Amino acid sequence: MPARLKLIIAYDGAPFAGWQSQTHGNTIQDHLERAIGSIGGHAVRVHAAGRTDAGVHALGQCAHVDLGDRRPPAEKWIGALNAQLPAAIRIMRCRYVSGAFHARYSAKGKVYRYTIWNDAVLPPFERGRAWHVATPLDVDAIRAAAREFEGRHDFAGFAANRGKPAADTVRTISRVQIRRSGSRLTIQFDGDGFLYKMVRLMTGALVQVGRGGATREEIRQRLADNSAAIQAARLAAPAEGLILLRVRY
Amino acid sequence: MPARLKLIIAYDGAPFAGWQSQTHGNTIQDHLERAIGSIGGHAVRVHAAGRTDAGVHALGQCAHVDLGDRRPPAEKWIGALNAQLPAAIRIMRCRYVSGAFHARYSAKGKVYRYTIWNDAVLPPFERGRAWHVATPLDVDAIRAAAREFEGRHDFAGFAANRGKPAADTVRTISRVQIRRSGSRLTIQFDGDGFLYKMVRLMTGALVQVGRGGATREEIRQRLADNSAAIQAARLAAPAEGLILLRVRY
Repeated sequence: MPARLKLIIAYDGAPFAGWQSQTHGNTIQDHLERAIGSIGGHAVRVHAAGRTDAGVHALGQCAHVDLGDRRPPAEKWIGALNAQLPAAIRIMRCRYVSGAFHARYSAKGKVYRYTIWNDAVLPPFERGRAWHVATPLDVDAIRAAAREFEGRHDFAGFAANRGKPAADTVRTISRVQIRRSGSRLTIQFDGDGFLYKMVRLMTGALVQVGRGGATREEIRQRLADNSAAIQAARLAAPAEGLILLRVRY
Repeated sequence: MPARLKLIIAYDGAPFAGWQSQTHGNTIQDHLERAIGSIGGHAVRVHAAGRTDAGVHALGQCAHVDLGDRRPPAEKWIGALNAQLPAAIRIMRCRYVSGAFHARYSAKGKVYRYTIWNDAVLPPFERGRAWHVATPLDVDAIRAAAREFEGRHDFAGFAANRGKPAADTVRTISRVQIRRSGSRLTIQFDGDGFLYKMVRLMTGALVQVGRGGATREEIRQRLADNSAAIQAARLAAPAEGLILLRVRY
């Protein structure tokens, strides 16, 4: 039986064209498959808990890969892979798992955090890691509106189509946490699953509320009624403020 | 009387060859002088509280510049300068000051923070912002040894010569604070002034202590006796972990 390795991966999304393999080869998946393949001596396919878009970061992306029959200690893989990978991609932990584990299908949920820098000037260290919103935001209004997302809803009004609409657009968000610390505003979403661009569309809606350009009621309505008129006003927060914190199994 | 503008500047040191102007033009000072000159319409000289080396960062570098007789509101300067400067350099605040203020000579002290990432793997977001020390460090030993730096000492044993030795190498460090949070270890130095590479040489010595390769007594000795034999074993922490937090006036 081949050995299945579970990887916890952190990356700075800026230099890469997202997770999913592309012909140009500059995606997280491409870099991982090349590194593992060159160490293991044969081509491999890496399966992630979920794709992240270009510019989106991860602290705890999870993936699995099937290796040959040899089983070098898992810690050896960490050192060997990190020696080959670009410094913007790091294997944080890894261990062997049973063939029953699947990074995508075994996932019970994910935690994403979105960071907004809400001040006139974006400090250099926040570049590429936060959405710079210079206009003052009403954080109480954002906090109240975020309550609307909690629970089980049809999130079709907060999803982008990837060519074809998702068959099932019902998801459960167990918690949305809003934290303000100085100019930094973070919105953390914990849910059983997220549709394409869903976190960025929810964040965009909350920022519209914070600017006074939308209301909590409009969010409630958009969860109930996914009509074209509502879709037109949608705002997606930019990729660079988003980070996949962890995958729950 | 010309208007003197005081600037508080933040920068990511990675893309630049340090503070001080060079013929290639890619220093913080060069970028600032070009931006101010192009807005003000005449060449200017910018004076900083102190130079920072290539790769060293700043959150609160302070500088002053003399402008012409026109005095556009200080807030206008922030927007206009940030529109011209690279995003890795930001004017955080600015205001007009009297001609008696001098960014360098009026400074009463500076606060520097050095960041060490003390774990096997350096997460992508710490790249260029921390010194990656993979071997475990004895933080209690570092904390005890850091006490030796506090107070008034001749720091010649913790300074690099910039061609010629500094005339006066006596400085007072009011406080060294060590904080450990997970894998992140920060060492913060508050002093009335710092010699060339002094923070990096003190940090290097503390890391040697933390690794068990030096003792608190050796630091005490090096403060008392700046001999060639002691100099030979010196370790300077790399530039990328260092940030100038603020200048006290």
